[in-house]
Amino acid sequence: MRRPRRVAVSSATYRSDGGRPVTRPRPLVARGDPADSVRVVGEFGVIGRVVARSGTAAAAEVGPGDDAAVVRAPDGRVVVTTDVLVEGRHFRRDWSSAVDVGHKAAAANLADVAAMGATATALLVGLACPPDTATSWLEGVAAGMAAECAPLGAAVVGGDMVAAAPDSGSIVLSVTALGDLGGRAAVLRSGARAGDVVALAGRLGWSACGLAVLRRGFTSPAAAVTAHRRPLPPYAAGPAAALPGATAMCDLSDGLLADAGHLAEDSGVVLDLDRAALVRACLEPPGPLQQVASALGEDPMAWVLTGGEDHALLATFPPEAVLPEGWTAIGAVSAGPAGVRVSGESAAAAARSAGAEGTGHVHFS
Amino acid sequence: MRRPRRVAVSSATYRSDGGRPVTRPRPLVARGDPADSVRVVGEFGVIGRVVARSGTAAAAEVGPGDDAAVVRAPDGRVVVTTDVLVEGRHFRRDWSSAVDVGHKAAAANLADVAAMGATATALLVGLACPPDTATSWLEGVAAGMAAECAPLGAAVVGGDMVAAAPDSGSIVLSVTALGDLGGRAAVLRSGARAGDVVALAGRLGWSACGLAVLRRGFTSPAAAVTAHRRPLPPYAAGPAAALPGATAMCDLSDGLLADAGHLAEDSGVVLDLDRAALVRACLEPPGPLQQVASALGEDPMAWVLTGGEDHALLATFPPEAVLPEGWTAIGAVSAGPAGVRVSGESAAAAARSAGAEGTGHVHFS
Repeated sequence: MRRPRRVAVSSATYRSDGGRPVTRPRPLVARGDPADSVRVVGEFGVIGRVVARSGTAAAAEVGPGDDAAVVRAPDGRVVVTTDVLVEGRHFRRDWSSAVDVGHKAAAANLADVAAMGATATALLVGLACPPDTATSWLEGVAAGMAAECAPLGAAVVGGDMVAAAPDSGSIVLSVTALGDLGGRAAVLRSGARAGDVVALAGRLGWSACGLAVLRRGFTSPAAAVTAHRRPLPPYAAGPAAALPGATAMCDLSDGLLADAGHLAEDSGVVLDLDRAALVRACLEPPGPLQQVASALGEDPMAWVLTGGEDHALLATFPPEAVLPEGWTAIGAVSAGPAGVRVSGESAAAAARSAGAEGTGHVHFS
Repeated sequence: MRRPRRVAVSSATYRSDGGRPVTRPRPLVARGDPADSVRVVGEFGVIGRVVARSGTAAAAEVGPGDDAAVVRAPDGRVVVTTDVLVEGRHFRRDWSSAVDVGHKAAAANLADVAAMGATATALLVGLACPPDTATSWLEGVAAGMAAECAPLGAAVVGGDMVAAAPDSGSIVLSVTALGDLGGRAAVLRSGARAGDVVALAGRLGWSACGLAVLRRGFTSPAAAVTAHRRPLPPYAAGPAAALPGATAMCDLSDGLLADAGHLAEDSGVVLDLDRAALVRACLEPPGPLQQVASALGEDPMAWVLTGGEDHALLATFPPEAVLPEGWTAIGAVSAGPAGVRVSGESAAAAARSAGAEGTGHVHFS
């Protein structure tokens, strides 16, 4: 089907994450210099500019520009995952710069690769954007992705760019990440066994704290806001956990209680989390989380338990395993009806007593 | 970031491909049984139903449900490509069934894998959809993808589902395909050399013909309409072309002249297409293309030269090569400023003389 010659961009009614109309921020579609728009620069011009920002993947045998990319998979298996980020749901252009969005979109996928015990090798990016999207904004996203990938030796090796739906002024980014297991077994969500140690790598609650700050119209403390804009997943901790035989692992993208619940369910076990250990791991020494929580009259434990998008990793290890660098014990696995407990409380009760609205993301509600 | 609790679905002004308002078709968001909506069924319920329709990939070591999938890559390299399909641009729910959309979305990606000389092993699917999307529609898409993949032994091994942008009532599908080269060199677009034979595998003009029928409100001849809804890429012809040493190859998704132009450019050569050979390959014996063209007063050669989405394959072979099954010679490669000629005419002149508006897709115009 030919693509249309004219595009009706609807006048978007922007809504905050809570569904409440907010003071209208910058238009969803940045209308800067018209000469910079995707419509004027054209598909191939935009792709050229974006590819120039994308760096080179060490594992790429064929990079962008052909029908498909060719990526080395020395293990003989490839780990692959995909995430979709929608403007107005997963990012806002008035809260995050283009470079921030690139970092965040890459991180969400790279963390999923790490959560299998693998090392990321390459990304692909699908983009649906309104024709008046600024090319410089897309270059910023590419630069952010490249910067997030570079320490891993990964980069964007291919993608697709199309015009957004005729009724939409919003950008949709779809990112696929590939990874290599280096001969190790993949660490699934289903392998936790009673007696295992539950351990955490990375930060929790920081992204939610930064979001709370942004929602109230503030931009400091910068550490919290930056954590929301550019999460810092502990990529190396994934493969490191596989070496001493992690029995199960997952990325914490929807919040600790929610994702621990998925792991517990898939493994058919109870994850007994220790509140004191969580406090030690996530809230000591006191920092921006306490500072913001105190200013807002909230309990920072709500963010630790239910805040998403930090992309920390949760894993279970055999009791005799020495936890690798970056991992901290926060509980133990026991037998029983699958679920999560926090120092004996149910997940729902623990979330409630911290003042959280639920145990994590509820999609499509 | 939490996803919103309420979603504003804009009242979409549907526009035809030509940008002209058309008689309002079925609403972009199918509102059947509310109990069938994604909002009510919920993310995990929908994923469960969709996965149940998705079949199993022979190469999948870990399928849907974990942080990432694990797909065998016996070649030690993986071919990977991604395509984004936007409702109202790449498909219309009143012109194609859910199963059709699944077939088409899979085919576009599987053909890109074939165009590298590889065999597809797995798909991943990212989906952004309005919360009132019918779950049964998504099941139909999954069934169509599964049916398109099954003959190759491939299947969907993972994905992501999120709510569409707050301002959009349209569905965005993002499909990533993986493939294996089976020890063969990847066939790029850049390897054509003067003296090579230009050859075609698959059909041309059928999808454009079907689109012309649908645009005028008709649904027959069925063969043409079906070709638009479910293209028939010659998957096996890709790896088959690699064996006798195809020097360059590409998928014809934007139209023969447009994509041949990319191959010519990347190889730095002239592709001299032979009009009589093209007529023999694409318009003989006479069939639906002539029938529809005659009814509409159009030249079927316009569809052959510029119609997209049939996902035929174009390749160049060394002069001494024996063309594999499914391939037909349609021209020769010569030296000169990169471009495409049709029996001596420039691509633009050939398109014009067939009555086509341009040489192929113009994106973001």
